[in-house]
Amino acid sequence: LTTLSSLGERSLIQRITARLSTAPWVTVGPGDDAAVVAPVRGMHDVLTTDAIVDGVHFDRRFVPFDAIGHRALAVNLSDLAAMGAEPRCALLSLLLPDDIDLPAIDRILDGFLALAGEHRVTLVGGNITRTPGPLTLDVTAIGSIHPRRILRRSGARPGDHVYVTGTLGSAATGLRMLRSNASNDPAAPNDCVARYLRPDPRVRAGLLLGRNRAATSCMDLSDGLADGVRQIAEASNVGITIDASAIPLSEALRESHARDGASSVETALTGGDDYELIFTVRHSHRGRLRSVVNRLAGLPVTRIGVVTKSRDLLVDDGGRTRPLPHGYEHFR
Amino acid sequence: LTTLSSLGERSLIQRITARLSTAPWVTVGPGDDAAVVAPVRGMHDVLTTDAIVDGVHFDRRFVPFDAIGHRALAVNLSDLAAMGAEPRCALLSLLLPDDIDLPAIDRILDGFLALAGEHRVTLVGGNITRTPGPLTLDVTAIGSIHPRRILRRSGARPGDHVYVTGTLGSAATGLRMLRSNASNDPAAPNDCVARYLRPDPRVRAGLLLGRNRAATSCMDLSDGLADGVRQIAEASNVGITIDASAIPLSEALRESHARDGASSVETALTGGDDYELIFTVRHSHRGRLRSVVNRLAGLPVTRIGVVTKSRDLLVDDGGRTRPLPHGYEHFR
Repeated sequence: LTTLSSLGERSLIQRITARLSTAPWVTVGPGDDAAVVAPVRGMHDVLTTDAIVDGVHFDRRFVPFDAIGHRALAVNLSDLAAMGAEPRCALLSLLLPDDIDLPAIDRILDGFLALAGEHRVTLVGGNITRTPGPLTLDVTAIGSIHPRRILRRSGARPGDHVYVTGTLGSAATGLRMLRSNASNDPAAPNDCVARYLRPDPRVRAGLLLGRNRAATSCMDLSDGLADGVRQIAEASNVGITIDASAIPLSEALRESHARDGASSVETALTGGDDYELIFTVRHSHRGRLRSVVNRLAGLPVTRIGVVTKSRDLLVDDGGRTRPLPHGYEHFR
Repeated sequence: LTTLSSLGERSLIQRITARLSTAPWVTVGPGDDAAVVAPVRGMHDVLTTDAIVDGVHFDRRFVPFDAIGHRALAVNLSDLAAMGAEPRCALLSLLLPDDIDLPAIDRILDGFLALAGEHRVTLVGGNITRTPGPLTLDVTAIGSIHPRRILRRSGARPGDHVYVTGTLGSAATGLRMLRSNASNDPAAPNDCVARYLRPDPRVRAGLLLGRNRAATSCMDLSDGLADGVRQIAEASNVGITIDASAIPLSEALRESHARDGASSVETALTGGDDYELIFTVRHSHRGRLRSVVNRLAGLPVTRIGVVTKSRDLLVDDGGRTRPLPHGYEHFR
């Protein structure tokens, strides 16, 4: 095996750089002290960074290397989507333990670059260093946005309806299946596993919601629906009541939970890794939302609740309300 | 002690965010899914990322937490300086092991924000995660530059003179002293230790070199002079001969090496962590360089060699030439 120490940092960077495509607005690409890019006229820059760590955000024992590369970019594109931004470029910081070999790095890049290509994201720079710790990928993603099209968390107003894209809880179920090795069961609904391994950031949905000014607030669901509801409510100084029966669940999730007896709704509320968007829409703007949904061709958008003046965070279980559970919080 | 697990990620982010200043061009600051910043009219964005890892790039046993925070930003500002960019904002990604407590994080931020303030850099976002591995800080720094003022590595031409800012080798000597605990010796030249602990990125020098179009190429010296010479020569398809006797050494380095018998020149050539700039200047542009130097008020700029058509990389030791040694390369 070609190990990192026999290859050297510079050769590794050259090997990666040789795979990269460029774009006309990239003034200086990888290989210099920094990248230089021309901004989009009239637009602002959107900047986000998110790291994934082996043993914390994924587990090398059951997540293939290309899925690790995919995920590292996906979680960042999801943040851009939540702002309504159009992604443009990314920086990739690789922290490599000694037992990572060259084929593994190639596979990580496979996953990263495939998703980048799908969203026309150019990898313009990055950094490689060894670490005595776990494999870590830290990505910075940069997008562009018109300053009057920004989707913040803080714009929800009483009476707005609460929506989510896609279905919830599948990724958390997929992770549970991978952990218990049940994913090898041929009867297992591997849609859940696929949703966990290769989340599909809702870039187009965020972009259309921003451009159509359809949403009053928006964020992405990385730590479960309950966490997203809480964050939007706190940032907007409002309450939110979620209708439990309206939460969109995948067929695969329902089947899995029918077998194991777990509550699908609870999984959707508290399980993480969905990377769907939660957003609020003024009643008078539902026409704008309809035109967004029409252009999303197949991605479900579901109304799951309502914004309230009272600051309470509630789940409505068929007429009986209960407090919103807590989502996943890191360090806890 | 207040530990991370008792505080929670969100409270920690709020604690940090409360310390941050903002700027009129920050459209959305920390606390949303991503930051939004207005670009500078007519300028391009300069993007760089660099991580520092405990046990690889520093050692918590002898580097104070505020110096760790300082260093994480400094190495990135040094990359911006090497392009001739004006720094504007940064994202800070903190990867925290369980034994890092709140006072340590506060001190890391002290060092980071003090240097940020000095260079008018706004911390607009970031990420915090726990890691089972070592303390790691990954910073993305963003600057702006006029597209015709970019300092690349690739512009050196035969006949150009080679210059460096400051003095070389001090940081490597400081690190050696810290490692051997000699820094507690009252006779020890602690200038070296200070240079290692809190490198001063040459932001103003890079900016002036770019604005005056004084340099044909430029990069920063993070892995020693020999590495910098090699990189510029390779990127520019030229050779470089360095005059060993011209390499600027600090008084503290000379004194230290007079005692321990080490070669100051070899330390400067192969020791890392200097974060000075190396750059090349056309003979006919030495007037431009003079006006840059006049405005640098006290930062020495020293001619150390010449660019050659032959691709050889040489050190001239008083008339006898020898091949340029290799600098520090990671993974080796």
